Amino acid sequence: MLANKIHTRFLSAERAARMIMCQGLATSLERMANYLVEDYRRWPEFDKTPRIAAHSVDGVIELMPIADHRLYAFKYVNGHPKNHRLGLSTVMAFGVLADVESGAPTLISELTLTTALRTAAMSAVAARVLARPNCQRMALIGNGAQSEFQAMAFNRLLGIDEFHLFDTDPDATEKLQRNLTRMGLKTCRFDNTHEAVCGCDIVTTATADKTNATILLPDMIEAGMHINAIGGDCPGKTELHRDVLEMGKVFVEYEPQTRIEGELQQMPSEFPVVELWQLLTGQAGGRGGADEVTIFDSVGFALEDYSALRFMRDLAIELGVEEEIALIPDLSDPKNLFGLIAGGVRPVRGKLFTLSDEMGDLSHAA
Amino acid sequence: MLANKIHTRFLSAERAARMIMCQGLATSLERMANYLVEDYRRWPEFDKTPRIAAHSVDGVIELMPIADHRLYAFKYVNGHPKNHRLGLSTVMAFGVLADVESGAPTLISELTLTTALRTAAMSAVAARVLARPNCQRMALIGNGAQSEFQAMAFNRLLGIDEFHLFDTDPDATEKLQRNLTRMGLKTCRFDNTHEAVCGCDIVTTATADKTNATILLPDMIEAGMHINAIGGDCPGKTELHRDVLEMGKVFVEYEPQTRIEGELQQMPSEFPVVELWQLLTGQAGGRGGADEVTIFDSVGFALEDYSALRFMRDLAIELGVEEEIALIPDLSDPKNLFGLIAGGVRPVRGKLFTLSDEMGDLSHAA
Repeated sequence: MLANKIHTRFLSAERAARMIMCQGLATSLERMANYLVEDYRRWPEFDKTPRIAAHSVDGVIELMPIADHRLYAFKYVNGHPKNHRLGLSTVMAFGVLADVESGAPTLISELTLTTALRTAAMSAVAARVLARPNCQRMALIGNGAQSEFQAMAFNRLLGIDEFHLFDTDPDATEKLQRNLTRMGLKTCRFDNTHEAVCGCDIVTTATADKTNATILLPDMIEAGMHINAIGGDCPGKTELHRDVLEMGKVFVEYEPQTRIEGELQQMPSEFPVVELWQLLTGQAGGRGGADEVTIFDSVGFALEDYSALRFMRDLAIELGVEEEIALIPDLSDPKNLFGLIAGGVRPVRGKLFTLSDEMGDLSHAA
Repeated sequence: MLANKIHTRFLSAERAARMIMCQGLATSLERMANYLVEDYRRWPEFDKTPRIAAHSVDGVIELMPIADHRLYAFKYVNGHPKNHRLGLSTVMAFGVLADVESGAPTLISELTLTTALRTAAMSAVAARVLARPNCQRMALIGNGAQSEFQAMAFNRLLGIDEFHLFDTDPDATEKLQRNLTRMGLKTCRFDNTHEAVCGCDIVTTATADKTNATILLPDMIEAGMHINAIGGDCPGKTELHRDVLEMGKVFVEYEPQTRIEGELQQMPSEFPVVELWQLLTGQAGGRGGADEVTIFDSVGFALEDYSALRFMRDLAIELGVEEEIALIPDLSDPKNLFGLIAGGVRPVRGKLFTLSDEMGDLSHAA
């Protein structure tokens, strides 16, 4: 009987961080962007579904599956805005790649850090085709966990080198300014959103409150601006005043999901949008002119995690990271699952008992 | 700043097997059954959804999420009938428990072996309330990976001690007979389904082919039989001739899912069924009399994995199993995710480079 062992590669949070350091953050973001573009151009090949969300009082837990004919991927991710009060991340994630032909999971990886990279890379991919040429200044409204990655991605992929910062939490802005300065990027702090966005080519909103907020108002929007709205990403959580959406052309990742989760949830169902893959394949046009406002209503789609997992898998292979996790039993005969535990089961007068040495062994194991 | 580390307990396939051996298979099945009954009685408290399936040529990959106000659970599971030709299991699974309040994953566990236990325990829970009293003989049609667990569960929970075996693969039957004999259970092999089911109180069908098969035909069904149909569990995969369903009362786990996946997919949408939780809470009646045929059209529902994960978590705690997995980064400041990689990033003339010692370190890591 042929017997094959399942090899499930494992990337811990620490391992993933070291791989990114090893590759360099800027290079990682650029490569991630290339993986994203490659996969978004294959859009029709994917079996897509809006993510499955379990909402509770304090947050949401989501599963985001996607597959083509070779690879299946899913991400587990939560969103709990109050978590930082408990000393926990607002967003925590991990994900899996599996082989479609056999169903075997081949990679399980942290995705908390990796999601931050893929979200930033995706924002930059969209802005690269939507923003005016030769952008220099970007406002970062919301200076939490995602903000450094946005700055790095826009610096690397679009050449942005001046960042206007604002957050209702001054500590967050101070942290961001410290990190960006250390990386040699120019920053400027502002006291409110209005002042921060003034004169910027691109405005990125990445705030965390689970409310229908109006971070950007119509009178803040300037001709030709590109708005990268990434914080409005679940029902009841938006960042733009609805009138802002009518000031420009709106681009989305996957329309059925963004209608439910994005800024779009404020608009009637016939409000026109363009899916990003159409832009990346040349099937739809982007910006109409230098004065047009463009809006990327980004909520994060499963395909981005597919790309991110694919990139991390390839990077792990390149770097020789070979750690595995024994999620799936190693069976000599796949039809004899019972064989896994048969060694510890013996009949005694018609009853079953358990080998006591197993007990002793296990109860002392760490 | 308060900083909390996420502790994610990890149960590998081998660890889970040793825990079951340690507890004893029969006791494990009985305890699992108790967890199932406890959770099924709390049915209205759960946020339920049919599983999300990704179908491909050779199989299916599914995610099965469920939550109450405290615990979120999901299972990843595949179904690839041809896998045994590759030396792989037809069904492989793992699952996660998470804390609803924070979204933190607290357990990741193998579920290939554990699913076999929970499916068998669920079958026995249903049969205990549906089959005639004092059952003695059960037919096992389909002698693959699930069959020993079915036998053990029905032996422990219902006192069944004689098993009639049939499979189109004689090697599978031989393996099952060897395993059951070793456990002190009486078995009898038959050449076809018709002979195997004759005179049995309970008939369990657990076949794997992804087809609309007719394993049980109307002329095989005897008055008072309980049919435990567990192999028909996805669209296009059934085991009972449709007329068999009209010969008795049909019970299901979660009606919206079974209508799509179970034997029920052969019937019109108004065909009456009773959900098992109604039976277990006394809100619905079961068997009408000794001659009535009862049918449990089992497809496997997320709540069963919730119960199974809860049981395995508690058993791990009881046995002092403390292995953890670093899926979620340990952050001193949750808003400073960037801090995870900042150590390896330094500015050099406006560019970023990577610490080469990290590279050396990583590329030699196993």
